Amino acid sequence: MIETVQEIQDMARGAVFLGSGGGGDPYVGELFLRQQLSLGRHAKIVDASELADDAFVVCIAGVGAPTVLVEHLVSAKTLLRVLEHAEKFYGRKVDALISAEIGGANSMFPVALGAQTGLPVVDGDGMGRAFPHLEMTTFSVYGIKTSPGFVMDDSGNVVSFETSTDRLAEEVVRGVATALGAMVYGCFYPMSGAQVKATAVLGTISQTIEIGRHIREARDHFEDPFTGLMAYLNDPAKERHARILFDGKIVDVTHETRDGWHWGRVVIGNTTDESDQLTVDIQNEFLIVKRNGRTVTVVPDLISVLDTETAEPLTAEMLAYGQRVRVIGYSAAPVMRRPECLKVFGPRMFGLDEDFVPVEELTG
Amino acid sequence: MIETVQEIQDMARGAVFLGSGGGGDPYVGELFLRQQLSLGRHAKIVDASELADDAFVVCIAGVGAPTVLVEHLVSAKTLLRVLEHAEKFYGRKVDALISAEIGGANSMFPVALGAQTGLPVVDGDGMGRAFPHLEMTTFSVYGIKTSPGFVMDDSGNVVSFETSTDRLAEEVVRGVATALGAMVYGCFYPMSGAQVKATAVLGTISQTIEIGRHIREARDHFEDPFTGLMAYLNDPAKERHARILFDGKIVDVTHETRDGWHWGRVVIGNTTDESDQLTVDIQNEFLIVKRNGRTVTVVPDLISVLDTETAEPLTAEMLAYGQRVRVIGYSAAPVMRRPECLKVFGPRMFGLDEDFVPVEELTG
Repeated sequence: MIETVQEIQDMARGAVFLGSGGGGDPYVGELFLRQQLSLGRHAKIVDASELADDAFVVCIAGVGAPTVLVEHLVSAKTLLRVLEHAEKFYGRKVDALISAEIGGANSMFPVALGAQTGLPVVDGDGMGRAFPHLEMTTFSVYGIKTSPGFVMDDSGNVVSFETSTDRLAEEVVRGVATALGAMVYGCFYPMSGAQVKATAVLGTISQTIEIGRHIREARDHFEDPFTGLMAYLNDPAKERHARILFDGKIVDVTHETRDGWHWGRVVIGNTTDESDQLTVDIQNEFLIVKRNGRTVTVVPDLISVLDTETAEPLTAEMLAYGQRVRVIGYSAAPVMRRPECLKVFGPRMFGLDEDFVPVEELTG
Repeated sequence: MIETVQEIQDMARGAVFLGSGGGGDPYVGELFLRQQLSLGRHAKIVDASELADDAFVVCIAGVGAPTVLVEHLVSAKTLLRVLEHAEKFYGRKVDALISAEIGGANSMFPVALGAQTGLPVVDGDGMGRAFPHLEMTTFSVYGIKTSPGFVMDDSGNVVSFETSTDRLAEEVVRGVATALGAMVYGCFYPMSGAQVKATAVLGTISQTIEIGRHIREARDHFEDPFTGLMAYLNDPAKERHARILFDGKIVDVTHETRDGWHWGRVVIGNTTDESDQLTVDIQNEFLIVKRNGRTVTVVPDLISVLDTETAEPLTAEMLAYGQRVRVIGYSAAPVMRRPECLKVFGPRMFGLDEDFVPVEELTG
């Protein structure tokens, strides 16, 4: 259950952390959710195990440029309309909602709609992080199709699609989002409760809240916010490994928008040793981190850049010259590291000429 | 009834003439239609007046770059699938087909599907020429919406749309065509028989066949192919006016693809007087013709460039340095010249800084 403003803020902060630099700032979703709370509503978060096997579950997500998303307040009406249209479109009642992407802004929309309608929201998502494409989900890797699905804008324009591949659906949805001028919200990956249990990355809403909580509580108690956070993230029993990769000052940032992607590179310098540098390459998300030319974390493992003092997780757009930051490498969920998943969102799918190696191996 | 190869060839040639340089080469559609004929099928062309007022009529059209369209043979299966999907999508039997655009390749698809299925095809269309946008139709001007509609590709990917404006539908369909890689076929402007009668540009299939026939027969009889053609085109009782604007040699051609449009300019020189030149500006279609800087024909009136010897109508892509050509200015259908239509596809909608003046006035 998400019932307090504190939990929402914790979740938003944790969602930026899991966004690995991408997915957009969840601030707009946070505002929306706080408004629901002030109306006496709350979001019911459920374990996938609580779902009936024949429950009907859909992904609710926003699609658009993160820069637009941040400036564009989703209206309460639009999310409700998406649900109404979903039930008409699929010809059945929706029993629960799930996020396609827990990293960044898309963490918020299912929770917001859940708060509005009382529908339960599954504690999980399709990637445990943020990715730029609709087909980059464990749902897709394990045979669930995003078709049939649809998108809708605030003015009620609706476009539905049924494509042979999820990759094509991605192309169509991206084209439609551009055509409709900005931001669209839609329904993807219609599936059963049994399919959610079999394919989702589980427990990721809880993870966002816990990450946010550890940062907040340390600040409240004037403690080093990284201590508790790293203790939480490192949990070998759950195959979770986190490493502080670097501590330094941003000495160079380049951003470029090309081919519909946000490309960039951030160079972080060691303040006591000029020859020691970390580079973070950006392709919407932080993709790969190299220390003095040697890879120390690579996609789909997560890379988070945080303010050194406050441990505030930063999105790629927020990075600027002179900031003092710490960079954390964090293991992706075990399912995300399987060979069949790496074929869809491993390093080579982003044009990197190297194979995936887990962060815990790269950092010895 | 279209029953002979000759009629199909006449129609294809006439469709290029009415294409005003755009709409793509109907050659692919011609081949398809000839194949239907060889299977003993023919296309039943009907007058709009023969439609029941409550008949259900849809526009069948291809959307994509003309260059792709020319290289991409539509499969018999795809057009049939479009019809099957239309009846499921709209929840009713389709009684007749109509072309959205008689100029160029889109003249052929409804006729081809009509031949395949026996469905009657209305003698008319939504523009009496070719235009680059889905909303540039008399249907749209007179209140018929292109939504709900859908597009489909050869692999069976389907995208349906319901938009608040036809302009937005255009943006969506264009984005989807790009996403699906090339050429899509779809259903647009679902309407009643009564609406066809009230809003279509009528008699345009007959017009294509007649234009083609006049050119062919003159050639067969070793006569000047322009004489009969001009006599047919000039019919003041039907408010039809045609003028030979120029006779010369192409001395310069520029082509450029920018913002999804084919831009270009053709300069034609008078072979006996160097100071006398005609320029034709292209924005997918031939938009405006100036003789020594003075406008002599402007959109939506039609501009056709024909080979001087054979009177073969040429599309914008076919024009090349050194060709000897005659340029004809031809009045658009009277309905197309009304103020409400000029607001949607008059000169200013193409960025031209002048008002529409009929060709018969411009040429005195």
